[in-house]
Amino acid sequence: MKGTLTIAGLGPGSDALVTPEVSAALAAATDILGYAPYVARVPPRTGLTLHPSDNREELQRAAEALRLAAEGGQVVVVSSGDPGVFAMASAVFEALEQAPQYQDLPIRVLPGITAMLAAAARAGAPLGHDFCAINLSDNLKPWAVIEKRLRLAAEADFSIALYNPRSASRPEGFGRALAVLKEAGCGERLVIFARAISAPDEKIATVTLNDATSEMADMRTLVIVGNSQTRRVGRWVYAPRGVR
Amino acid sequence: MKGTLTIAGLGPGSDALVTPEVSAALAAATDILGYAPYVARVPPRTGLTLHPSDNREELQRAAEALRLAAEGGQVVVVSSGDPGVFAMASAVFEALEQAPQYQDLPIRVLPGITAMLAAAARAGAPLGHDFCAINLSDNLKPWAVIEKRLRLAAEADFSIALYNPRSASRPEGFGRALAVLKEAGCGERLVIFARAISAPDEKIATVTLNDATSEMADMRTLVIVGNSQTRRVGRWVYAPRGVR
Repeated sequence: MKGTLTIAGLGPGSDALVTPEVSAALAAATDILGYAPYVARVPPRTGLTLHPSDNREELQRAAEALRLAAEGGQVVVVSSGDPGVFAMASAVFEALEQAPQYQDLPIRVLPGITAMLAAAARAGAPLGHDFCAINLSDNLKPWAVIEKRLRLAAEADFSIALYNPRSASRPEGFGRALAVLKEAGCGERLVIFARAISAPDEKIATVTLNDATSEMADMRTLVIVGNSQTRRVGRWVYAPRGVR
Repeated sequence: MKGTLTIAGLGPGSDALVTPEVSAALAAATDILGYAPYVARVPPRTGLTLHPSDNREELQRAAEALRLAAEGGQVVVVSSGDPGVFAMASAVFEALEQAPQYQDLPIRVLPGITAMLAAAARAGAPLGHDFCAINLSDNLKPWAVIEKRLRLAAEADFSIALYNPRSASRPEGFGRALAVLKEAGCGERLVIFARAISAPDEKIATVTLNDATSEMADMRTLVIVGNSQTRRVGRWVYAPRGVR
């Protein structure tokens, strides 16, 4: 049987948010690779080899997945959320660029519910008008680029989804991002802190940016900064469809 | 039985991209409201009333959904893609703001695979780095706001997902958007035209912005403009994870 490589999104946590297409790919897999907590979401079974790996090893994991598929495996690389949003799909194509001998392999990317969509749904509709998504990790880009994008996003009056706001190795960045947005005049905007959405320990809170502090986020939090029109109705937060 | 209102995303077209959570909500519904082509995706059955309506009637549809739920219905409002991205969720919260008598109704928003995620997955990983999403319809916002956002998005070097690029009633806007991005120095960027992704008549094409023309998009097309680093590897298009 010819090997294949599938890059699949598991959604934010709940099995009720895994698409049937992804479930079918997992059921047909011989090998599953990914960051250990995501691989742990797949139940073991005969004929399936699980290959959990560490967070920082995206490119090596991608190269290993290509190699296993070339050997005939039905290989699935799993990401949390959507594999194309700050996740494994780009890493696989980077690895493919470095390994032209694999360019004829059958590859599929299967989308998933990315964190900002799950967080927005729980909060109401804060992404109902134009928005952007910025990865706050500066592992692979200079912090100056992040600051510039935050300023331009504020000027464009986008709602702003912030991925990877804060981790143990990057405790400072999120506080600086909040300061940049305050300087850009966003102090009165609503900010949603959505932690572990759809998992049993899910938590969501909304404050104004002036009241937001760095400690409100951790590595499992997705942050959405509203646009200038974002507002509350009852317990919900939403962006109106139009600009007045 | 107490009435409930659920706002559900059907994904881009294929049943394989509908989450189990949404399928369960559809199976339990007494009333389903939405734009006619989306309601037509739900099979009729005893005990279920389908309420198809026209494209431009979002706010009336939302008010009707609130009323039916208040009367005890298990009401589901369906959107294509994700209900929170340029779709029905914001309209429902706008209607709720105007009808405070319904503010205690149990409401749930169920996320879905929005068009840009499905399109990106089919193309490769063009949203693998920071990006924005802009609705090109100027029904509810001035065109000047759209132009300003396009210029700032280009300056921020975001990949740009363009929703509703072109319709029979708005034939001009998309051409103007392409011109704005050319003026902003994006002529060499890759542009993906993704039409009816996951439907039987799916079609996808990639050209440089200099070679893109207005006629390449219609109302079923999602357009993704790459960032300055977006490139091809074999038949794939992807944004590298980092900034060089």
